[in-house]
Amino acid sequence: MILDLKIDKNVQEPVYFQIYEQIRDLIASGALKGESKLPSIRALSKALGVNSVTVVTAYNMLEKDRYVYKRQGSGTFVISKGEDFLLNREQPMYFEPGELDMENEYDDEYIDFSISAPDPKLFSVKDFRQVMNEVLEEDGARAFMYQKSVGYRPLRDALVDYAANYGINCKSEDIYVVSGAQQGIDIMAKALVKSGDCVFVEQPTYSGAIAAFKSRGAKLVEVPLQKDGPGIKELEKLVRIYKPVLFYAMPNFHNPTGSIYSDRKKRYMLLLAKKYDFRILEDDYSGDLNYTDQKLLPIKAYDNNDRVIYLKSFSKIFMPGFRLAYMVIPEDIRRKAADAKIASDISTSGLMQRILCKYIQKGILEKHIKFLRKEFSVRYLEMVRAIKKTIRGASFFEPGGGLNLWVNLPDGISSQELYENCRDKKVIFSPGTFYFNDEKGQCYMRMSFAATNIDEIWKGLSIIGMEVEKLKNKY
Amino acid sequence: MILDLKIDKNVQEPVYFQIYEQIRDLIASGALKGESKLPSIRALSKALGVNSVTVVTAYNMLEKDRYVYKRQGSGTFVISKGEDFLLNREQPMYFEPGELDMENEYDDEYIDFSISAPDPKLFSVKDFRQVMNEVLEEDGARAFMYQKSVGYRPLRDALVDYAANYGINCKSEDIYVVSGAQQGIDIMAKALVKSGDCVFVEQPTYSGAIAAFKSRGAKLVEVPLQKDGPGIKELEKLVRIYKPVLFYAMPNFHNPTGSIYSDRKKRYMLLLAKKYDFRILEDDYSGDLNYTDQKLLPIKAYDNNDRVIYLKSFSKIFMPGFRLAYMVIPEDIRRKAADAKIASDISTSGLMQRILCKYIQKGILEKHIKFLRKEFSVRYLEMVRAIKKTIRGASFFEPGGGLNLWVNLPDGISSQELYENCRDKKVIFSPGTFYFNDEKGQCYMRMSFAATNIDEIWKGLSIIGMEVEKLKNKY
Repeated sequence: MILDLKIDKNVQEPVYFQIYEQIRDLIASGALKGESKLPSIRALSKALGVNSVTVVTAYNMLEKDRYVYKRQGSGTFVISKGEDFLLNREQPMYFEPGELDMENEYDDEYIDFSISAPDPKLFSVKDFRQVMNEVLEEDGARAFMYQKSVGYRPLRDALVDYAANYGINCKSEDIYVVSGAQQGIDIMAKALVKSGDCVFVEQPTYSGAIAAFKSRGAKLVEVPLQKDGPGIKELEKLVRIYKPVLFYAMPNFHNPTGSIYSDRKKRYMLLLAKKYDFRILEDDYSGDLNYTDQKLLPIKAYDNNDRVIYLKSFSKIFMPGFRLAYMVIPEDIRRKAADAKIASDISTSGLMQRILCKYIQKGILEKHIKFLRKEFSVRYLEMVRAIKKTIRGASFFEPGGGLNLWVNLPDGISSQELYENCRDKKVIFSPGTFYFNDEKGQCYMRMSFAATNIDEIWKGLSIIGMEVEKLKNKY
Repeated sequence: MILDLKIDKNVQEPVYFQIYEQIRDLIASGALKGESKLPSIRALSKALGVNSVTVVTAYNMLEKDRYVYKRQGSGTFVISKGEDFLLNREQPMYFEPGELDMENEYDDEYIDFSISAPDPKLFSVKDFRQVMNEVLEEDGARAFMYQKSVGYRPLRDALVDYAANYGINCKSEDIYVVSGAQQGIDIMAKALVKSGDCVFVEQPTYSGAIAAFKSRGAKLVEVPLQKDGPGIKELEKLVRIYKPVLFYAMPNFHNPTGSIYSDRKKRYMLLLAKKYDFRILEDDYSGDLNYTDQKLLPIKAYDNNDRVIYLKSFSKIFMPGFRLAYMVIPEDIRRKAADAKIASDISTSGLMQRILCKYIQKGILEKHIKFLRKEFSVRYLEMVRAIKKTIRGASFFEPGGGLNLWVNLPDGISSQELYENCRDKKVIFSPGTFYFNDEKGQCYMRMSFAATNIDEIWKGLSIIGMEVEKLKNKY
């Protein structure tokens, strides 16, 4: 196909721009449909009697502005309308309401299904005191000095074994300690993302990640999720079109949907990352809270080509107030990551690092995780039962792990309206609109059982169930 | 004066660009000298027979590219050559060596004049333990939950009175708690600085600030310092040329030089900030370590127009391992700052915040600061004496406060070479090259007495003095 373009060499507009504009208009008007192939460079330059560099320039502009994409070896194709996955919303500063407003306001009066940090009642202050005292006896005030910005060495050593429990082979040098997972995301955004770079996120995703990437001036592309991860063909096409530098993903017990990438898709992500030269920032926020015998490994466990930056928060399995997380970072980007950490806060509290180190060395953390896993698995099962019983017409995926259920509300119920009504009754959850760009979130709610006991689960859900019925009757 | 420009309306190049290029070339060749005035818009457009908008466009381009600057009401002037204060260096990841390498490596064997964090021996672990136990008794594991991202309310309340001690009138809502001063800088960079924006820093300055601003893609301009702050005329001119969004300053006991802005210059900075609509980020890292009866207030104390973001670290007067600082933030930028904090690490450790809160409430912090002031003033005086005695030919300003002396080495001694020689003898300091873009730092060393006792001061300095003599003899 040769396009019917009109080139006028006597006007001021450069020829490449005339070509760009006319093809752009043909696409916008629908005359050139999605997936149709543009003429080859050679054919078009010959037909128009222009230099091939001129056509290349025009095609590159079209690609940059995302009207077309290239498939290696087969040519340049028009991007279908309605396939613009670019997230154009303004910075959506929606956070988990409980986590941000919890100071004295909600905790006692409210039943809070929005917070995904563990119930403080599950944390042993006695253990903490003992560990703290041991640290102070051994190190005294030296525990309060600056640490190396990449982390306290004995903790990094201890984390090597810890990571091995999750199938990750690494050395101390690979491990960086950071002040919580949010900082980990922020640091990698600083290290890897320049203004205008494209970052992939799952749809829906954690809004704190969106905030960190947007703050760098990144272009965000939302990748739709199936139950077992992104659609393979679709993902490869998006990668070709948008050329991401980074894919931020939560492959196990995804937040908020709970979905779990299949092993096949985990490996496929790695193949793509290698082929198209991007990194995967794997946020393993609750992979260790697995309540079934399904074997789940992080993508990092399959990574033979240094494609994955692994990020593990201790907020869900220890306590969020410690502000501790660790990363496993490929060697070639370690210097950049260290510089970004220094520019962010110099170093993470040495005292907290020493405490976590001792928790691991003495086996207390392992015991605590086992305890939490047992406790949360009971709450998980009760939550599953309670939702089924109280919210008629709801449906949801049962991930068998994590701290949340992602509930598809009965037809026509708006999660935002339901949220407001329940909040008046002192029950809160995260409406799906916190996680989506557009209206897609209206039919979902994220229900966390991290901070609610069994009584609260049943009591809170019976209130939500009643409010759902009221809304059904309202319409 | 009408410039001799040649405009050709028949070429493809737009007329405004022809004007831009020819004036640019006249400046570059020296035909148009620094401070010469360009023709008025009206005169030039008449002389060239072009639309005045065309000339405006050309002048704006020249201004943007920093060939000219505008003085309100008087016209457009050529910027003198050799007056380019733009800091073009690559990200200089130089940090205080002690602070970053201190883990087990240096502390015992080395006499460390590079570290500006207090000697851990000055911190009472017993006090800490007691405060910590009180916090745990009162709040239990709730102390480990997420906090509001702007800070733990009782601490913010306590900081209102604390700030009042330093002449700052503010409300709890004005106060944000952050994870150390470096994070405060990073957050304000995120909140206020977009890629391409201009940020002023003092010359020399703290490299952690440079790192944070550079990470945002800021253009940095270095403002030379006199003993009592920036030169007034020079500063106003730089502001006119570069139009900063932010001026990062340490007006009391500046790091590294120790210089102190005069009251007149503090007020003048505020006038400029109002007139030219920029903010001042005031890093008051050691204003409370004042060993004389000179009355020193932060710029924030004079600020009636919400121009100053005040940033106060607790690393120098408490311990750096707490990772605590606070900011006083003008109301109109508070939302942006809160968003930036959330994207950075959600919130600062609630446990650490509660501990600091109790330290303040019980008066322990005040007592501790008095103790440190006394202790450091002794070290300060010994350091002054020791340098005078041991380094023949050195000169330095005696600030009467802070934690550093900025020593001008005898002629011809390279601070980098001296550093390397002393390091072999297990004495370290910060060479001036850590703080400057170019060779200017070669003749300076920053000597901190924060972590060295009197014996170490004399022992360390006698070694440095001998190494200086060896270098003198070498040339």
